[in-house]
Amino acid sequence: MSARELRFAIFGAGFWTRYQLSAWRELEGVTCVAIYNRTRPKAEALAREFGIPAVYDTPEDLLREAKPDFVDNITEIAGHKPLSLLCAQRRVPCICQKPMAPSLAAARAMVKAFAKTRTRFFVHENWRWQTPMRQLKRLIDSGVIGTPFRGRLTMISGYDCWANQPALRELKQFILTDLGVHILDVARLCFGEANSVYCQIRKTLAPKVKGENVATLLLSMGPAKTTVVIELGYAKTPLEPTVREAFPQTLAFVEGPLGSLEVSADYLIKVTTRNGTLIERHPPPRYPWADSQYAVAHASIVDCHRDLLRALRGEGGGETTGADNLKTMELTYAAYSSAAEDRVISFR
Amino acid sequence: MSARELRFAIFGAGFWTRYQLSAWRELEGVTCVAIYNRTRPKAEALAREFGIPAVYDTPEDLLREAKPDFVDNITEIAGHKPLSLLCAQRRVPCICQKPMAPSLAAARAMVKAFAKTRTRFFVHENWRWQTPMRQLKRLIDSGVIGTPFRGRLTMISGYDCWANQPALRELKQFILTDLGVHILDVARLCFGEANSVYCQIRKTLAPKVKGENVATLLLSMGPAKTTVVIELGYAKTPLEPTVREAFPQTLAFVEGPLGSLEVSADYLIKVTTRNGTLIERHPPPRYPWADSQYAVAHASIVDCHRDLLRALRGEGGGETTGADNLKTMELTYAAYSSAAEDRVISFR
Repeated sequence: MSARELRFAIFGAGFWTRYQLSAWRELEGVTCVAIYNRTRPKAEALAREFGIPAVYDTPEDLLREAKPDFVDNITEIAGHKPLSLLCAQRRVPCICQKPMAPSLAAARAMVKAFAKTRTRFFVHENWRWQTPMRQLKRLIDSGVIGTPFRGRLTMISGYDCWANQPALRELKQFILTDLGVHILDVARLCFGEANSVYCQIRKTLAPKVKGENVATLLLSMGPAKTTVVIELGYAKTPLEPTVREAFPQTLAFVEGPLGSLEVSADYLIKVTTRNGTLIERHPPPRYPWADSQYAVAHASIVDCHRDLLRALRGEGGGETTGADNLKTMELTYAAYSSAAEDRVISFR
Repeated sequence: MSARELRFAIFGAGFWTRYQLSAWRELEGVTCVAIYNRTRPKAEALAREFGIPAVYDTPEDLLREAKPDFVDNITEIAGHKPLSLLCAQRRVPCICQKPMAPSLAAARAMVKAFAKTRTRFFVHENWRWQTPMRQLKRLIDSGVIGTPFRGRLTMISGYDCWANQPALRELKQFILTDLGVHILDVARLCFGEANSVYCQIRKTLAPKVKGENVATLLLSMGPAKTTVVIELGYAKTPLEPTVREAFPQTLAFVEGPLGSLEVSADYLIKVTTRNGTLIERHPPPRYPWADSQYAVAHASIVDCHRDLLRALRGEGGGETTGADNLKTMELTYAAYSSAAEDRVISFR
């Protein structure tokens, strides 16, 4: 079975589709055979550029006629639930773009629908596949600093994300659903499931940006009850260039009984133990199609795809299943509830 | 009145008395005229070294005979309440070493006793007088980054503080009462009074160290409801030398709408605005009697004394009155309650 070429289809022809298609082409044994988009000309343009043989006007026609082995649902968030559910009904394995859904109820319904029809369902959560984040995870798991008792993940940038994507201004819930899901997912990867979460959110750019654009979380995570601080911010605040302004890099600082780890800008990872500090650079692999400014994010798409492809072939892997990602969604919405009620929310 | 020499007495002849006496000698118009210590020979040795004319066997005798203008109570924590209350009864202004008292009830009783006898009462809280902390305060007040919406204060060290002071191993409440009061006081100075506090504490060195030695707090502070993260740790964790291991320096990172501030190791303060990053060094003044390893802490004693001396002369100042410091104590014990109950504690 591992030798068989997998034929997949794409729903959506927006901003991210080009990168996702490029990333799929880095892998062996997988081909895009069809694309559907609400606005057909955009799908046709991508089909020409990427040599996709079939363009469809409806997702139903695509599934019936192209019979893909799986669907990569790269539509905007409003399309996540209906188009994923269509795949569940037709028993076509599906990878859904993050965030999985615009509400926790929708996310639960989606996971349930795939479970009911025994169809594989994944979420395209690529942040945890970023080169420095994987190295951070490896270092924690190696035991070099012992079991972490505290960790801090920081993703703060003065970058004007609304310039590229003005629609983000209108979201009533912004930074936790956009960026927070990524960082909470990384926190789960590194420290384990959340035991509790407390969150404060702020709207520093209102009324021009409707949603919260700054969030600070204090969690207890995993069996070791690691204290985890998460700092998120898109506030247009000027930050020290190349040190603090590391968009889209996540910075990290982790303390354990035997030492400490730091992920700094420019992909530097520092491991400090009694023997001193070892500084290594863990830059992402470079791909010609990737935007150099987003290199660490774009390159991670390839590794995310590789993992999902293994799972789709039944060869293991598949970290970001729908069921797994539902935990990230639950944590994200618990953070909103925590902020709204100004209280700690416990999960056990 | 400002020309009159103030004559003061000292209670206690322990570790800190030498530094405190040295710091008083840096100032004009103030002289130590008497010292009391439970163990007389220690008081006598200091009296010889610092030219203090009178040594007493009891604090009562000292107050009655030496008639000091004020007392500097530098006894260990068990002496803070009884010896300060003695001053209150005799209507002798008193400066009490931090932490003010071993419990919130004791601290409240002390402040009340001085209020009742209309006697001036101060706490020797010097951390806020450290050169980089004062500069941080000045920068925040200058408005250069606008009103801060988030701040982070970090005082984490691998330093073995129990080697010097083994008694610290026995304290059931350790890092918040020892170090936490200092950092919470700095947070109040920089961001205003706390609206709420949430705290997680950990004991990573138990059973050899009885109390909590790691604490992480998430507060809302001041009228702007600034989100404040405080990270405290004495966990013997190896940290990157000269960057993360900055004992006894406090590191800080503050975000505002117009820019960001960072206090880094080696007294570097970075101000980032649209115009770029300005990096200035704000080292403490150097005194021959100060231990170079503690320079930033020891030098701050002089500035703390200067401020209290002005207040004692009726010339203004006097930031760290008993009433003011009671707010720091309330916050400290609220943090313990928060940690014990795993909940957010609100003050309004």
